[in-house]
Amino acid sequence: MTTARYYHAGCPVCVSAEQTLLNLLAPDVKVEVVHLGEAPSRVAEAEAAGVESVPALVVDGNVLHINFGAAIADLK
Amino acid sequence: MTTARYYHAGCPVCVSAEQTLLNLLAPDVKVEVVHLGEAPSRVAEAEAAGVESVPALVVDGNVLHINFGAAIADLK
Repeated sequence: MTTARYYHAGCPVCVSAEQTLLNLLAPDVKVEVVHLGEAPSRVAEAEAAGVESVPALVVDGNVLHINFGAAIADLK
Repeated sequence: MTTARYYHAGCPVCVSAEQTLLNLLAPDVKVEVVHLGEAPSRVAEAEAAGVESVPALVVDGNVLHINFGAAIADLK
């Protein structure tokens, strides 16, 4: 089982990328979707993981920044 | 069966993203990996699909630009 976190901020780019990407993932990849606009207390966690912009998928210590919705700095 | 194209240019960012992303995809997602440095004739095809930088994954008309390795303009 692989666990990934999809950080987003509810922006159109985020929603579009989520729909495209998450549909492609293997069934055994468990994805926690984190809306940083609704959970601002987790911005620090995202930053610590290396997230610089959203949307981003974090898995096994790797960060995939996907397209560009918003800079993490703008979510603080 | 979903068919996707992963455009890259052999850069470290491209290789890292490929390893992370392609391992997560469902087994029924068929991915054609296109190295634009080795197949420069396909740069136009990537551009037409909306690719602005590599690495990028194109699926069902959607483009996921993943991290940033190189601008497509720099591959011409």
